[in-house]
Amino acid sequence: MKKGELLYEGKGKKLYKTDDENLLIAEFKDDLTAFNAQKRGSEAGKGALNNKISTQIFRLLKEHGIQTHLVDTISETEQVIKKVDIIPLEVVVRNIATGSLTKRLGIVEGTILPLTLVEFYYKNDDLNDPLVNDEHCIVMNLVKSEKDLQILRHLGREINSILFKFFEEKGLKLVDFKVEFGVDKDGNIILADEISPDSCRFWDAKTNEKLDKDRFRQGIGEVKVAYEEVLRRILS
Amino acid sequence: MKKGELLYEGKGKKLYKTDDENLLIAEFKDDLTAFNAQKRGSEAGKGALNNKISTQIFRLLKEHGIQTHLVDTISETEQVIKKVDIIPLEVVVRNIATGSLTKRLGIVEGTILPLTLVEFYYKNDDLNDPLVNDEHCIVMNLVKSEKDLQILRHLGREINSILFKFFEEKGLKLVDFKVEFGVDKDGNIILADEISPDSCRFWDAKTNEKLDKDRFRQGIGEVKVAYEEVLRRILS
Ligand SMILES: Nc1ncnc2c1ncn2[C@@H]1O[C@H](COP(=O)(O)OP(=O)(O)OP(=O)(O)O)[C@@H](O)[C@H]1O
Ligand SMILES: Nc1ncnc2c1ncn2[C@@H]1O[C@H](COP(=O)(O)OP(=O)(O)OP(=O)(O)O)[C@@H](O)[C@H]1O
Ligand SMILES: [Mg+2]
Ligand SMILES: [Mg+2]
Repeated sequence: MKKGELLYEGKGKKLYKTDDENLLIAEFKDDLTAFNAQKRGSEAGKGALNNKISTQIFRLLKEHGIQTHLVDTISETEQVIKKVDIIPLEVVVRNIATGSLTKRLGIVEGTILPLTLVEFYYKNDDLNDPLVNDEHCIVMNLVKSEKDLQILRHLGREINSILFKFFEEKGLKLVDFKVEFGVDKDGNIILADEISPDSCRFWDAKTNEKLDKDRFRQGIGEVKVAYEEVLRRILS
Repeated sequence: MKKGELLYEGKGKKLYKTDDENLLIAEFKDDLTAFNAQKRGSEAGKGALNNKISTQIFRLLKEHGIQTHLVDTISETEQVIKKVDIIPLEVVVRNIATGSLTKRLGIVEGTILPLTLVEFYYKNDDLNDPLVNDEHCIVMNLVKSEKDLQILRHLGREINSILFKFFEEKGLKLVDFKVEFGVDKDGNIILADEISPDSCRFWDAKTNEKLDKDRFRQGIGEVKVAYEEVLRRILS
């Protein structure tokens, strides 16, 4: 697979063209950003860790019947992925209240939610990724129809069921996570982007120690050690 | 109807007990507030105007089969209303994009929306009335069930249909409005609070002149003149 022209450089990954117009190469970067890139940092080896973690998680999801963009992981930091039209929504799935949920709505930090909560945020850095309801998505043409929103919600919950159980067995609480979906060349809505400690919150089941990007957001430190621990648990 | 103890003083109204435990007296105040009461003012006679305007609108809605809390309008500034348990949601219905919708989501000011948009905001001044989706309402117990949300959405759209047409005939565009609902002693969800230029946006159909609280919000002035014009059109 020949690595072609740089198509897009994001905060966490670079996307390159390949000689197949339906495939891209995603390269995971060591950069860390938080609060819509107001806080910036870097952690040598973080990209490689996220590549490994996301690969394991996407393979697990595939085994459980979830369609993903992952074709092959080809180096320490690179994956071949199916090119999709990204649906401009961050689909956030929550089991335990923390972060913006507690700040926006006054829900007590650490509350175990009575149902798995799915939220849609409009992917738009200039607007600071605002929360949207279903009707906003239709009015703004973010999806083709109400049905697509049901599919996204269903996939979010499915992924949560699979991963919550998986991580529970590894001694980690899956607190919440963000996923992105896209439409592939056949018109299917498939899981894209990544699932890693950059996009999930993991708390140690016994100590509640945070093992994710909150260590960077909150300046707790030992970010890479935490990501290594997540990978170790996944492989255990 | 004897006016009893002051039960609640809000930004726009005072609520008093009566000798009937199921009835309250609402007194409309001259105070004006905006941006979650960061901007404050007063306009002599505004309370009386809103009382008259809201009375006319609630009567119109009743004629069209919408259940409301309004029992009787008993003075320039006072109404007897059914006491309800207010559902802590501001139900916002929009026909044209303006205000927070354009700021939050980047929709161009003045865009005629392809569908009537209904939004729920959690009534909580400390949190600045945040937008919520259906699942937040369930998680936070703001309503009893998903069905209540459907009822609120349906009532919001019904009220919009009736009022949009009514005001169109009076040469006013109903741009958007906020309504509150409550549960009465029989368990019915009924329209409560008020519908007035404090809670609606009205634009003159020909000139697009604003005839509502945006004149106060934006410091355009002639607030009372505008409210008087809305009443004049309603009665025309
Ligand atoms: N399979 C795919 N096909 C096309 N684009 C993809 C695919 N998977 C992910 N993307 C997009 O590639 C970019 C990945 O880069 P990165 O995660 O660094 O972006 P980001 O800084 O988070 O910015 P953004 O706000 O665009 O997500 C994202 O815009 C993501 O939506
Ligand atoms: N029929 C009713 N029974 C009980 N409470 C009502 C009824 N109608 C309206 N209310 C409530 O009475 C109060 C009216 O006061 P006002 O509109 O001045 O409040 P506000 O300053 O807007 O504050 P709030 O944030 O509480 O709405 C509101 O809290 C409203 O929800
Ligand atoms: Mg990203
Ligand atoms: Mg009010």
